[in-house]
Formats: sequence, structure tokens, C-alpha cells
Amino acid sequence: MIKKYLLAPGPTMVPEEVLLEMAKPIIHHRTSEFSNIFANVREKLKPVFGTKNDCLLLSGSGTAAMEAAVVNCFSSGDKVIVVNAGKFGKRWVEICKSYGLEVVSIDLEWGRSVKPEQVEAALIANPDAKGVFIQASETSTTAYHPIKEIGNLIKLFDSKLFIVDGITSVGVVETKMDEWGIDILVTGSQKAFMLPPGLSIIALSDKAWSFVEKSNLPKYYLSLKKERKSQSDNTTAYTPAVSLIIGLNKVLDTMMNEGLENVYGRHELCALATREAVKALGFELLAKDIPSNAATGFYLPENIDGGKFVKFLREKMGVTFAGGQDHLKGKIVRISHLGYHDIFDTLTAISALELGLKYFGYNFEVGVGVKAAEEVIFKYKVSKL
Amino acid sequence: MIKKYLLAPGPTMVPEEVLLEMAKPIIHHRTSEFSNIFANVREKLKPVFGTKNDCLLLSGSGTAAMEAAVVNCFSSGDKVIVVNAGKFGKRWVEICKSYGLEVVSIDLEWGRSVKPEQVEAALIANPDAKGVFIQASETSTTAYHPIKEIGNLIKLFDSKLFIVDGITSVGVVETKMDEWGIDILVTGSQKAFMLPPGLSIIALSDKAWSFVEKSNLPKYYLSLKKERKSQSDNTTAYTPAVSLIIGLNKVLDTMMNEGLENVYGRHELCALATREAVKALGFELLAKDIPSNAATGFYLPENIDGGKFVKFLREKMGVTFAGGQDHLKGKIVRISHLGYHDIFDTLTAISALELGLKYFGYNFEVGVGVKAAEEVIFKYKVSKL
Repeated sequence: MIKKYLLAPGPTMVPEEVLLEMAKPIIHHRTSEFSNIFANVREKLKPVFGTKNDCLLLSGSGTAAMEAAVVNCFSSGDKVIVVNAGKFGKRWVEICKSYGLEVVSIDLEWGRSVKPEQVEAALIANPDAKGVFIQASETSTTAYHPIKEIGNLIKLFDSKLFIVDGITSVGVVETKMDEWGIDILVTGSQKAFMLPPGLSIIALSDKAWSFVEKSNLPKYYLSLKKERKSQSDNTTAYTPAVSLIIGLNKVLDTMMNEGLENVYGRHELCALATREAVKALGFELLAKDIPSNAATGFYLPENIDGGKFVKFLREKMGVTFAGGQDHLKGKIVRISHLGYHDIFDTLTAISALELGLKYFGYNFEVGVGVKAAEEVIFKYKVSKL
Repeated sequence: MIKKYLLAPGPTMVPEEVLLEMAKPIIHHRTSEFSNIFANVREKLKPVFGTKNDCLLLSGSGTAAMEAAVVNCFSSGDKVIVVNAGKFGKRWVEICKSYGLEVVSIDLEWGRSVKPEQVEAALIANPDAKGVFIQASETSTTAYHPIKEIGNLIKLFDSKLFIVDGITSVGVVETKMDEWGIDILVTGSQKAFMLPPGLSIIALSDKAWSFVEKSNLPKYYLSLKKERKSQSDNTTAYTPAVSLIIGLNKVLDTMMNEGLENVYGRHELCALATREAVKALGFELLAKDIPSNAATGFYLPENIDGGKFVKFLREKMGVTFAGGQDHLKGKIVRISHLGYHDIFDTLTAISALELGLKYFGYNFEVGVGVKAAEEVIFKYKVSKL
């Protein structure tokens, strides 16, 4: 018997009560019953996005919403700046290039967070750039970029949009779209929203909507103008992912019930405990500047093959971590703190990590990781109960 | 958000796939569809009981099956020997006395396992005794009694039955009913069979069935003769707990799939890891002679109120342990290893125990319990993967 622990940065575990909600008989989407749920979801998303504007739901994973951001707000030949600090930064580059945009890429070593000054320099060097694309949390490197500070910079330019991939940050850390000057914010269902994949959410500022009017890129399924019209009437342009939206309604209730501050605090605590455990075990964090609270990546010793390590834990011990992507493949491990994840998931992650390390011959004192994690958890949570 | 971890010795956690099986639309019990499932369950139970005889299913919890053992095989005024070493030994005494049996009680300090010589002495002192009642695993003290050895003793007496409460031993440790001379073996659904409570199972040897013919105690719902007749035809005398039986069918498949040896080994491993952790934390095990692999009980320091401790872990941290019963109330904690429980449940249990101990001011080095548990788990499991 192997119990399964899904501790990779998405898809994440789904709460039992949400699974049960989604397992109820399917309802039709062109009904007042669905429209009521849909209206509720749209309202409840706003505080999580930190916006007064519409949060539009798309049936598609996070990449669909990223593409929607590009094709709805830009035109062929537009110059844009992309912070490229990992696999998902690279995805912004690829999407933009696919549609004929001219990309000025701020290339960073994987694991680094961009400095606001670097963005400022790019803006100064490229006065004709129409927007800045970034990840809030770059899932491939588990680094966080200083979104608030960069947003405050870009706010000063009427002619530029600030487009943020919040796929592993919305619902993980406080995100104040309106206040921070984020013009487009996208996220997906399978991360902090603890749902199965298949649903993404996108919100646009008034400035971004003004760009929509000028965009000449081809689009049909991802047309946000059409979605905004339909969704304002609490329906969707095309068939929506009904059960995921019903699940999201339940998830948002549980998040509101827990309190957004507590949701963010829980992610922060599990992330901090994991970072301290990983350091106590003698490893170097992948995120050099600002580690993300969505997941923690670290380098394995050179004599351990990360691919084999992750496979062993998944297949033999039931614990799914993520390995590295692209040039980090086989070199790192990433442990998620996302969504339906509590302190005992973190402690399970660290115990599993220790057992795996011992199996792979790493020389360390068994228990030091868990001890470090328990001390963080005691200090910031249990002692305050 | 508080995730729930049910780590008390029953009810135990139910596997998701079993919950889903039981959530399917209910079927009628007087159908060939149900009879087929019922026939399968009856066959699959036999290796777990270690018997070639019928395993009868009763809709009622374990105590119902205990009562069935008494009322079907004995008569008013019969003398019986009861090994009374905890709350459930006391239950045998109470049931027997309720029906006018004369009880010779072998009273033991809670936490002790009976010695075969003590049973032998009682048999010699009471040649007219008709049976010996015992728990295999006394859940209230987490002690195991040497069933095999006692069975071999009683085998020598044609005129006596050996009645074993296997509620927290069947499915936990190897139990060879026929080979060990057990005449009546009972168990419940909510322990090693990882189901919700409400179903119990009882098997009788040929010798026990011959006692049934002579019993004069009143019975109706618990009449085993009537049940045997119905269940031989793959139906039940009264309405059965349909969904629990369907769940049991699924559970038995998963147990066979895992392999009974592996099921027993898993319980043994989690129990051993917990015992080592508890000892490393400086505590004394409640079970003095033979600790049960179903659960581990230990004494808390005198200045920690066990009731408050268990309540804190359950309500504030989501982790349900059991406290003590009767005179041990407030003094001990019992951690289960039963059923749908794996190494990470054990490690969660130990982490939660450590965090709780620190909260309650116990002076120890955080992490020593988990370290001890991890070392056991590595030695006996992970290193062999």
C-alpha cells in the first residue's frame, strides 16, 4: 500500500469537500442555477486578485490565459519587454514571438529575481515598448520577482502595460492588482485554488481594456472582449468548465472562511519551514534573491541524479516532488507549498526527502531537516495557538 | 485550514477508493448482484481469519459480535474464565454476567499481557469452566496477549471454547484461527478493515457450533444459527449493512493486492517506529510485556493533562489520538497504526506529538522522536526498496 502525496507545484491536492462538490450531478451552463454560482465566483475572486475589475474565467490552463493577455492587448510588431528568468519567462517570450511581437528580453540566471532597476533600465532603453511581461513567482526556479516595486515603476508610463503571470502567486501571497499597477493578471485553477487543471482566470485594468480596442492580433476562443460581454451577464461565450467553476465556488468559500491573511500565512509558514529544513540538510536554495512561497527548489549533491531521486520518491514512496526543467533537469528538487497543504504535508515532505537522501547515500544526520522545520512551525504557529 | 488526521485506534481512515465505492447508488440486498458480492466477501475473509469455516457478517459494531459469541454458545450458569486486562476484558466480564454466566476473572494490571501459565492455572483450578475469553489486542492498554500459545493450551480440552476478541488484531497481525485452536473469533469493520463502523464479523469452529446446539440463552437478532443458514445461501437473516459490505469487498481486494504479509508488516513497521520514537522522547510504554501492533500507548509526564493534550491536538492541530480510558483517563496517549495508515501517517503522528509536547512545556530536544522513527523506517523499509 502506497498512499499518494502530491507535493509538486501543480496540480496540487484537492480538498475532499471540493471533490465531493464537483462529483455532484453536472448542471447545464445556460441556467440561472449556473449563472448564480458564476456570479458568486466572479465576485469572490476580486479580493484574491486585489481588483475591482472583472475577473474573467477561461476554460483552458494557465498558458491559455497567458496567450489571451498577448493576443488581446497587443498588435503585430509591438515591442515588449520580458523578464526571462526561467521556463515561464521563456514562455512569455515564445508566445509573444509566435504572434510577431518584438521581444526585448531581460535574461537572468535561473534562480535570480529581477531588480526593479533592471526593468527601469530596459524601459529607458526602449521608450517605444508597449508592455512589460513577468512572472510574480517563477515556478521553474521558485524565485519571486518584486512585483509591487516594478508595478510602481510602470505606473508612471501611460503607454505601457504591466502583465503579470500570477499562476503560482495569486492566492499564495497578497496580490494587489489595482494598487500595485498590474494591468493584466492571470492565474490557473491547479495551484493555490487547489482544483484540478483546466480553468484559468484573467483580469484587466481599464488601461489594458483600452489596449484591447487597438489590438490587431487574430483571436477567437480567447477573445476577452467577447468574454467580458458574456460574463457581465453571468454566462460565458463558449461552454465553460462547469464542474471546475462549481469547485472554485467552494474553494473560494473555504479560502474566505480561513481568511486570506491566514491563507497567505500558511503558505509562508510552510515555505519558511521547508527552506530552513533544506538549509539544515546542507543544501543551497535555487532562489538566490527572493524565494517564492509557492515552492522551494534546491540543488541536490552532484552524485545524486535528481531524475532518479524524484522517480524513487514518487514510485516507491508515494511522494511526488518536482524535479528541474531544461538545464536544471536532474539537478534540483522542487517541493510545493501550494493550495490544500498544511504543516503536516510540509513535515511529510521533509521526512520523505530525508528518507530518500539516506537511500541515495547522502551523508547527514537523520532528523535535522524535520527538527528545523518543526522549530519554525512551533515558533510561528503552534506556540501561538 | 486544519486538515484532519484520524490516528486513534478506531474508527480509522477510509481509503478514497473505498469511500467512492460506497458512494455508488445503493443496491437492494435481495438480489443476485448483492449475493455475488456477499459470496466474494465471505470467501476473501477466510484467509484473514485463518479459517476454513464460515465468516458471518453482522450489522452491528464489534460489541454485537462479542455478545453473539456469548449468547450463542453458552447457557445460564455456565462458568467461564475471562482474561481481564483492560476495558475490553472488562467488557467480556460484563456481557457474560449480563446473561447469568459465572465469571472467573484473571485480573491483570492494565498494560500487562497474560502469561499462558496464568491461563493454565485457571483451567486447572476450574475444571468445570466452559470457555476462556480474551482479547488478542487489548485496545485500551495497547497490549497483545499470546493467543497462539494459549490456543495450544486450550486445544487439549474438548469441553472448553477459546473465544478471542480480534477487533484490533484481525488484519493487523497474522491470526490463524484453525491452527491456533481459536473457537470463536470476532472483529469489527472500523479497525484494520479501514471501513466506517457498523459491521462486525464472527467465525466459529466446529466445536463452537456444537456448543450452539446446547445454548439456552435468549437471542433473536444475534442468532448465529439463523445467520449461518441465510449466509450459506449468500443472503442475510435481516437487512445487512449493504454499503459497508460493498466497501469490505473493495478493502479485501486492496489487502489481497498488497499481500497479507505486507499488511501485517506495515502495521509492525509503523508500530515499531512509533515505539522507538516514544522511547526516544523519554516516555514509558503502557504495554509492559508484548506491545500490540494496532496502537501504541504511553504515559505522559505527570504535569501534562492527557485530556487537554489530546483535545489540543485534535481541535487546534487536526490530529486525533486517543487518550486513556477509566483509571488511565488523562494519563496516557494512544496512537493508532491501524488500517489505511502508512509511514507518513506515523511520521505525522510523531511530529504532531512533538509539537504538542513542546506547547505543553515538556523539556526535550525537538526532532528526536522523528529521528528515531525515520531510522526504523529506513532500516526496515526504505533501505530495502
